[in-house]
Order: sequence, then C-alpha cells, then structure tokens
Amino acid sequence: MRTLVPFAATDPKTRLSGVLSPAERSELARLMLSSVLDSVVAAGGEPTVLSTASLAVDSLGLSDTTAATTRVVVDDDPLSVAVNRHLRQAAEADSPEATRIVMADLPLVTAGDITRLTDRAGDVVIAPGLGGGTNALVVREPAFRVDYHGASSLDHRRRANSLGATVSTIDSRRLATDIDEPSDLAEVLIHGERAVRDWLVDLGFELETDDGRVGVSRCGE
Amino acid sequence: MRTLVPFAATDPKTRLSGVLSPAERSELARLMLSSVLDSVVAAGGEPTVLSTASLAVDSLGLSDTTAATTRVVVDDDPLSVAVNRHLRQAAEADSPEATRIVMADLPLVTAGDITRLTDRAGDVVIAPGLGGGTNALVVREPAFRVDYHGASSLDHRRRANSLGATVSTIDSRRLATDIDEPSDLAEVLIHGERAVRDWLVDLGFELETDDGRVGVSRCGE
Repeated sequence: MRTLVPFAATDPKTRLSGVLSPAERSELARLMLSSVLDSVVAAGGEPTVLSTASLAVDSLGLSDTTAATTRVVVDDDPLSVAVNRHLRQAAEADSPEATRIVMADLPLVTAGDITRLTDRAGDVVIAPGLGGGTNALVVREPAFRVDYHGASSLDHRRRANSLGATVSTIDSRRLATDIDEPSDLAEVLIHGERAVRDWLVDLGFELETDDGRVGVSRCGE
Repeated sequence: MRTLVPFAATDPKTRLSGVLSPAERSELARLMLSSVLDSVVAAGGEPTVLSTASLAVDSLGLSDTTAATTRVVVDDDPLSVAVNRHLRQAAEADSPEATRIVMADLPLVTAGDITRLTDRAGDVVIAPGLGGGTNALVVREPAFRVDYHGASSLDHRRRANSLGATVSTIDSRRLATDIDEPSDLAEVLIHGERAVRDWLVDLGFELETDDGRVGVSRCGE
C-alpha cells in the first residue's frame, strides 16, 4: 500500500499565529510531520511526503529507520490536485495499489492507529477530523478522487457512494485531532506522549482550567 | 453492570446561551439524554439517570423499551459526590457489580460504542472527552472514586494507577464529543443521525465553512 503524507511547508498553521511565531509554527509543523512519519513507518509503511516546497529530510530529526524509508516529493499544486495525481498513478500502475493518505498534523496518532485504519475493510475508509475534514483515508477504489474542502469527510462519503464503492468510517479521537487552533494544543498537552508535547512544554505552554473546557496558556502572556 | 447517566436538569448547557434560549437549551439537554439512554438500552443496559432535579420520564420522548428500562433518581449533590455514593453502593452490594458512567451530552454515541466501552478489559476504562474531561467510565475496581474536575481523564488515570488498578483508554471520536460550546454543534450537524440533529436543523442551524474549521450558523443571526 502506498502512503501519502501531504505537507504544507510554507507559512504553516497560520491559525496559531496568536500563540506561536512564524519560526515556531514551522518547527511545530515539522515535529508533527516527524511524529506521523514515525507512526506510519512503525506500522510497516513507506511514506511519501508531498511537500509544497523543498524540505530537507535531515531537518526533521527522524529516526534512522524512518529517514531511510521516507521519500519527499515537492509538489506545489493545490492539495487535492497533488493527491489526485498520485491516486491516478496508483490506479494506473502495472500492479494497481491501494493508497493511504494521512495528514501531517496528527501528533496523537500511533502506529496502532495506522494499523487500525489500514485493517478496516472498505473500498474507501475515512477518518473524519473534528470539524468534518478528512484526516486520513484509505483508497482502494481506483476511480475515487479527493476534494479537501470544508466538511470533506461528508463529500468523500458521497463521492464513494456515487461510485458504488463501500465506505467505512474510523471512530478515533486521535485520528480526529488535527492541530489547527490554540485550543487544539490542549489535546497534545493532555494526551501527547512524544516530542511535540515536550516541545510545547519547553515553550511554556500549560493546561489552563476555567469553568469550561480545559484550554492552554503560555506563561508570560 | 450498573449504568449511571448523570444529568444536570436545571439551566443546562449555559455555554450555549449565545445561540440557544434557556428553553431551547433544556430541550437540547433532554434530547441528548434520550439519545444516550436509547444507546445504553440498545446495548443491553438498564440506565439510572442521576438527575439534579425532578425529571418526568414522559417528557423525554423515549421509546417504550427505553422508558421501561430507565430509572430516574433525583440527587442534588455535586456530580462527583453523587456518582461516588453509587460507586460505593455497587462495591458494597452483596453481589458487587461493575459500574458504567456515561455522560448525558454525547449525542453521537451509538449502542456499538457502549458495547465497545464495556467489552474493553481493564479495572478502570476511560473514554476521554475533548479538552480532557471524562465522558465515559467503566469502574470494576471497588475502591475507585471519581473527581470530575478539569482534565479529569488524567486524574482518573492517576487515581486508578495509585490503586494498582489496570487502566485502559478508549480512542473514540464519538465518545469524545460532548456538546458544550457552539462549535460542538457542528459535530452533530456533520455526524449526527438522530433526533438531536433534526432538531438543530429545524431551528435553522447549518454548517458554515470559512477558511478554517467548519462551524455553525443559525439563520437570521
């Protein structure tokens, strides 16, 4: 099975601008990508990073195993266009293959979660993100194409249905937790077990409990 | 196994005040409770609603099966005190029983999710909510007591560990999605399949996509 990990290399995670500098946002994006790649490789995958700009694998601090199995392809087309080109290639290959697409901003995802995603039956397997996006997909239907816009998990379900493909959904909090907004950082502080959490703690982020849901604060701000 | 469903009957869901009137918030809380009770009963459970004020079962619009298996106990003690009294009773019964505690504001939870929760091995099984709360628990350790405050899923894990109990965590988006804030309503519009979603649609709620995560708007506002 092929694995694509799309990665926005330029000015990533702009909705975190209120709490992180541009350099910090880039660092966070790279740490989250590394975490996802480690999980994919630990689950037996050989990931291809679809990066919007050149990206030195050395800069990612990957383990030797992960670095040796990861390939970076620079593609500055819009996300859906780039992914669909690879889906077409996979479908038209001499030995057509299934494709897994895992977003790069899922720092809670474990190798077990990747395996759970992969083991699920279905021509199209969808792991919805909070807010309705599509955080991970397995595509076994050759004619299926993505459109990552808005509540795309619903659109992807409709598209798969319209092709007569079987669809299943993965009910996973960890796969659902993409990191876009400051409140999402709370999930990493609460549940993270790896470098991304340590990095946030080193920057001074901590959990903050008011009357409502737990949020985050950054000390001195 | 006993099942407790704590329910705040008076002025519920205050963080939704910006988008729902007091009467609407009460109605939403009752609809979500009904949904959870239906799922518990469909999974073979016999729920006890721990309500902070008197509650007419008739007003919940339950199915006949659910109404016949549901018991309401009024208890105006704070949440943790009320739940712990029942945990003590379960532990001290002639035939000690495990207890399942499922929050009443989980409208996405299915009977299958309740079964998944119940089938998971562990003296204490925790389904964390977004923001670190504890949305569902299975307690098989007689000495375990709850403290629903802040990032309680972490506290519950520590408490269980300190008792030498085995702990496991359920990774479920549906069990993690408690409805507290306007943005949470998007999850119901996207994934809901039952009365709560229909009710929101009837009130004029719809998905709203801007550059970021999908949110909700209410027409005319």
